[in-house]
Amino acid sequence: MDYSGNTMSDAFNALKERLADFTHLNQAESVLSWDQETYMPEGAVVDRGEQLATLGKFAHELFVAPKTGRLLRDAAKEDVVAQNPDSDEAAIVRVTLRDYKKERKIPVAFVTELERTRAQSHQAWIEARKASDFKHFEPWLVKMVDFARRYADLQGYKEHPYDALLDSYEPEMRTSLVRKTFAELRAGQVPLVRAISEKAGTNSDALLHGHFPREKQIEFAKHVSQQFGYDYNHGRMDFAAHPFETSFSARDVRITTRLYEDFFNPMLFGTLHETGHALYEQGVSNAFAHTPLEHGVSLGIHESQSRMWENLVGRSHEFWEHFYPELQVIFPAQFGHVALNDFYRAINFVSPSFIRVEADEVTYNMHIMVRFELELELIEGKLKVHDLPEAWNARYREYLGITPPNDAIGVLQDTHWGIGLIGYFATYTLGNLASVQLFEQAQVDIPGLRDHIRAGNFAPLLQWLRMHIHQYGRKYTPDELMVKATGKSLSAQPYLTYLKQKYSQIYGL
Amino acid sequence: MDYSGNTMSDAFNALKERLADFTHLNQAESVLSWDQETYMPEGAVVDRGEQLATLGKFAHELFVAPKTGRLLRDAAKEDVVAQNPDSDEAAIVRVTLRDYKKERKIPVAFVTELERTRAQSHQAWIEARKASDFKHFEPWLVKMVDFARRYADLQGYKEHPYDALLDSYEPEMRTSLVRKTFAELRAGQVPLVRAISEKAGTNSDALLHGHFPREKQIEFAKHVSQQFGYDYNHGRMDFAAHPFETSFSARDVRITTRLYEDFFNPMLFGTLHETGHALYEQGVSNAFAHTPLEHGVSLGIHESQSRMWENLVGRSHEFWEHFYPELQVIFPAQFGHVALNDFYRAINFVSPSFIRVEADEVTYNMHIMVRFELELELIEGKLKVHDLPEAWNARYREYLGITPPNDAIGVLQDTHWGIGLIGYFATYTLGNLASVQLFEQAQVDIPGLRDHIRAGNFAPLLQWLRMHIHQYGRKYTPDELMVKATGKSLSAQPYLTYLKQKYSQIYGL
Repeated sequence: MDYSGNTMSDAFNALKERLADFTHLNQAESVLSWDQETYMPEGAVVDRGEQLATLGKFAHELFVAPKTGRLLRDAAKEDVVAQNPDSDEAAIVRVTLRDYKKERKIPVAFVTELERTRAQSHQAWIEARKASDFKHFEPWLVKMVDFARRYADLQGYKEHPYDALLDSYEPEMRTSLVRKTFAELRAGQVPLVRAISEKAGTNSDALLHGHFPREKQIEFAKHVSQQFGYDYNHGRMDFAAHPFETSFSARDVRITTRLYEDFFNPMLFGTLHETGHALYEQGVSNAFAHTPLEHGVSLGIHESQSRMWENLVGRSHEFWEHFYPELQVIFPAQFGHVALNDFYRAINFVSPSFIRVEADEVTYNMHIMVRFELELELIEGKLKVHDLPEAWNARYREYLGITPPNDAIGVLQDTHWGIGLIGYFATYTLGNLASVQLFEQAQVDIPGLRDHIRAGNFAPLLQWLRMHIHQYGRKYTPDELMVKATGKSLSAQPYLTYLKQKYSQIYGL
Repeated sequence: MDYSGNTMSDAFNALKERLADFTHLNQAESVLSWDQETYMPEGAVVDRGEQLATLGKFAHELFVAPKTGRLLRDAAKEDVVAQNPDSDEAAIVRVTLRDYKKERKIPVAFVTELERTRAQSHQAWIEARKASDFKHFEPWLVKMVDFARRYADLQGYKEHPYDALLDSYEPEMRTSLVRKTFAELRAGQVPLVRAISEKAGTNSDALLHGHFPREKQIEFAKHVSQQFGYDYNHGRMDFAAHPFETSFSARDVRITTRLYEDFFNPMLFGTLHETGHALYEQGVSNAFAHTPLEHGVSLGIHESQSRMWENLVGRSHEFWEHFYPELQVIFPAQFGHVALNDFYRAINFVSPSFIRVEADEVTYNMHIMVRFELELELIEGKLKVHDLPEAWNARYREYLGITPPNDAIGVLQDTHWGIGLIGYFATYTLGNLASVQLFEQAQVDIPGLRDHIRAGNFAPLLQWLRMHIHQYGRKYTPDELMVKATGKSLSAQPYLTYLKQKYSQIYGL
């Protein structure tokens, strides 16, 4: 197939052919990973590792070959690229060249060693968490921190080795900026958490615990995700132990979710969260099809989409003014006699807790800050892995006012570090901040946005996101996107204002 | 990873590394194809084609590269191969070299042209069948027959161009032998079909039509497949429009099935059929892991396994002596008051019909003979595609005593020709014949085999098949396998005897 269209230059055409091969290999890897998390029988896990390793090897070899560099440099000289720096073609060359230069800095031996160690480390983490035995995981985490440091050295950085780690998840983000933003956030959020804790007892989520039959939960969650605009002709929903969204191309974007019959929240809000991710991926311009740009630009911007649909829309009063009557029809015994306002307060119940993935909107960022600060100290060598559990617990006491009773629901709770994902956590909070900053701009640009939501009309918001975020894929950096969409770089203030307003009202502060 | 073990030579090790890469690419292709048939959203079909084409290209280029040939020839000289012609290592070199020589004869341009044409031809067939309009499909079938002839010329053959086509599905099978075997079969089966048709009205499958709730059907079919020995830790069951079995490796062997709540047969017997295929693939020796030999050797031998578990076991009186009481508990309203013997007669109801995939044990081969004979005449140029519908209908009249009322349930019913699968159909009947010949040998070798089945003990049969068929993967040719297992080449006589005995009893002939 000819992926190039007919108007482009020969060099650009040749580049696109090569990128199409590379992209298809990556897509195949993603399909195999999706299958591994959803349907693959357990006994296939070793073989699946081998299949993925082979696909990864072919994709990597193709991409870092000098020929890719030559094609990129030749294509960069073509008129369509050189004379139109803001064109999609120029973006394809620019972003891919950036990837290429980064990939070339990492020797294959490093990748192989990391992959092998990661598999063992992940296994050790699983066992350690099960036994709540940090000692069992400690030597592997030492290795993982060491890998992260070596990676930063190989990649290089301007200010801080952690910059190189961040860059894998949030291109061009700087540690200094995250630190500054988080400090602002901490100053505003810690008092808010305390103030709400003092009102503990004035709110509860008890009415969300009960019996919610499986099929009805699925029906409702799917219905809402469709109303948001998730296209099931190019997507689907399955179940997984750890829900995720994955995109093979913009024409095949899948979500997974999980369901408990005794608790209402995970299925619905999990689905809305993943739907937010999926809407982003389904909205990438066709100009980037069969190229590495056909994805969201960063984890932070991605999370801004998931959190916007989950929280700013899905936990808003307006949203439930529309959907609550429907929900009452589906669950008459559970919600038939519950007033909208009581339901709204219950789904916005705040309570400091140990587990990040179960945290409410107000406390969530505190979990992230703990991890970000500890990662930074580990990378800087100020904190030894050996002392990590104690440092973890101290920080939970300080930020959330609670002390984890054991390491399983403390420092061992997340899978990330065990598989070497260091520099990743901050993006969750960056996403929260961006979600509000973008939503506020959407409110400025779309007259009556809240009324649209109240009417169950999500098309104006989706259109705005398509236009300002989704279509660009990886064309612009996260900062460029934020400035283009909102006129400003990312800031903590809109988020703090939003939290204070919403929760002062709910908790009568 | 080192796929070679430690005792092998360097040349053999290097070969195994290369074959592992090749195998993993093929496995990835199979995962993507499985996904396409089970879960993939419709809107992803074009992208999926691209992904599969890229994987196919990488696999093909890797395999036909001169380096593969060098490694094969070097490995062939190593002691472990040269001095042990019956070793697994020698088999890996021998069978792969055979594949290599065949692949090298087909130019990439031919493959590309065929792939592209096949996609359009398949689409035309879908439309033609829908409208029962053979004319719409005719030009595409002309192309497909032409591809088949060109393929035979490229591949070369000793006696007949159709030999080269057969060889893709049934290695080393000759047209002359199929012709001779089918003639024998026809001579015995046509009179049997007639004799049973004269007794029409003495039997019926009415009691298998009714209401059979979905979950109960799944429960029972899965239960039986587990009892047969299908390992769900290395397998799984899903639903697909056209049921199939697929094996990524012996550690991940999946089946699909289909279910109608108003008809009992398709779910159960379809599952047992695919389970037979799956047992074969799960039983291949680990010596062939990560090589092209880790699959069943041919479609015919594969079908012998599926038909044995579906028919010789699953439609036997002994089988139901064990399972019928369980079935009555699961479906008390439907079968509670039906005697075992009436149920047994119903599941062995014979009735000449138009659709191959719905045919009973007695008439099934007649459907195949029609196709085989027409294919042969098309390849020989004795029959024009234009005259095919008429020839089809004439042959149905002759062999089955019925005339298809339209082409949709006549010549257009099967997908095979539309995608260029010519030379494939005969293997269904070869499989039927082999299933009986193997089962009779198993009865000789396993004292009281029918009693074991009557007791729900399938392990002795599975062990016998593991030992004589499954473990070898593609090591031996189908004929070598049959001779090793039964002392004889494939013959029509055991099957004819089996049919006559079983159905004379049921129909009182």
